[in-house]
Amino acid sequence: MELKRLSLNQITTERLSLRGAVAACQRHQIRNIGIWRHKLEETEAVRDAGISVSSLCRGGMFPASTAAGRQANIDDNLRAIDQAVAIGAPTLVLVCGPAPDRDIKAARGMVADGIAAIRDHARASGVMLGIEPLHPMFAADRSVITTLAEANALAAQLDVGIVIDTFHVWWDPDLYPQIARASGRIAGFHVSDWLVPLPDVLLGRGMMGDGVIELRRIREAVESAGYAGPVEVEIFNRAIWDSDPDTVLTTMRERFEALV
Amino acid sequence: MELKRLSLNQITTERLSLRGAVAACQRHQIRNIGIWRHKLEETEAVRDAGISVSSLCRGGMFPASTAAGRQANIDDNLRAIDQAVAIGAPTLVLVCGPAPDRDIKAARGMVADGIAAIRDHARASGVMLGIEPLHPMFAADRSVITTLAEANALAAQLDVGIVIDTFHVWWDPDLYPQIARASGRIAGFHVSDWLVPLPDVLLGRGMMGDGVIELRRIREAVESAGYAGPVEVEIFNRAIWDSDPDTVLTTMRERFEALV
Repeated sequence: MELKRLSLNQITTERLSLRGAVAACQRHQIRNIGIWRHKLEETEAVRDAGISVSSLCRGGMFPASTAAGRQANIDDNLRAIDQAVAIGAPTLVLVCGPAPDRDIKAARGMVADGIAAIRDHARASGVMLGIEPLHPMFAADRSVITTLAEANALAAQLDVGIVIDTFHVWWDPDLYPQIARASGRIAGFHVSDWLVPLPDVLLGRGMMGDGVIELRRIREAVESAGYAGPVEVEIFNRAIWDSDPDTVLTTMRERFEALV
Repeated sequence: MELKRLSLNQITTERLSLRGAVAACQRHQIRNIGIWRHKLEETEAVRDAGISVSSLCRGGMFPASTAAGRQANIDDNLRAIDQAVAIGAPTLVLVCGPAPDRDIKAARGMVADGIAAIRDHARASGVMLGIEPLHPMFAADRSVITTLAEANALAAQLDVGIVIDTFHVWWDPDLYPQIARASGRIAGFHVSDWLVPLPDVLLGRGMMGDGVIELRRIREAVESAGYAGPVEVEIFNRAIWDSDPDTVLTTMRERFEALV
């Protein structure tokens, strides 16, 4: 797809500082960047470079075994909303969190309660909350919200947005109906690829074109559902992290234009 | 649950021959065994020991890029049905296979066509076909059928059975309604646990009690849906494979009685 919609999610160049990632975007004519909270330093570098922020990653992680723990998580999300405002991010991506015990149903309730508790502050701040369903292989340690169907239901109930990431949802037999159902609520779209065999649960995502995901078909469905915003390339992959960032960004641009 | 329903799926003691696994079952008063086709040797050992066969693993793997390839896969499944008859297995477990390319929808059609092509032979042979939905992390290399909802729809369409494995389905927000919907079609039930963090995509399954799955709750739901057959413990785990089989079976018995 057209380059102007490409956004570099900062995790793809994990070894670079925010300033370094912004400079890399400038060298490669990339106009948008998705920023991670653990790399929120030197934010003036983004402003000075005239680069748009597509999202802030990540809020969420709501469940906890005690009420005090759940309140601490809510407080952290309120801070994340303020950080999104400060850096000019229109969307806060929510990775909803795992269950603190074996009761996944109760944890899903804690997620709903947590989002409900931060929603008004997000709205007043002009920040869109985006529930990102994660691949079910992360259900035990990162997110009890694992399907677009569940994210759509929760987003409709709470009147917030969702974020669609090809790596997390490509396998879903209900993928295209659920993308259509998300119409009007899509707050972000992330791309990467699924490698075969999968090199690693966390750090095994692939560059677009190196795996089996029908990227263009999914992108077209997301566009048909009304999403016209930046498209983040978000790749957790140790081999890519260990590569020269300029080589990675050159490949990323080419693949984005040819395959997404 | 009660020991008499425990079945040792042979993969849990991967290092043992079939004869060795049968002898281990006898030492531990385990009355049922689930057998893998790649270990189909000395099958008289099973008969002589008076041990029941709960299932044969596995048929399936239907998709291929050519018609000849798909026919070869169908032929292999017809042989598997005959092998199930020969060993006295009431159920042939179907691991449906991955897509030969990026078109997962077309591959799902090949799976439906493949099952339709072997169904009559299975029925005439008295062998129940059991579609086993695999965890979505196996969608690219083992099975395009990844949810109970999809397995239930396919099984209803083709009038065959399904196999439920806790490791593959525990994360599903639609788990309990789909187990209820499977009533009358459940041809097998497998248990193991989901470890946190997951040690390995293929060889990271855990012994019951070592992970986060609500085993008893799922077992009760499967029973409420009318399944009263053997319950296979199927654990792909290198550390367990490298342990003394008698130690593994002792633990397996205890955990089965206490937690399943």
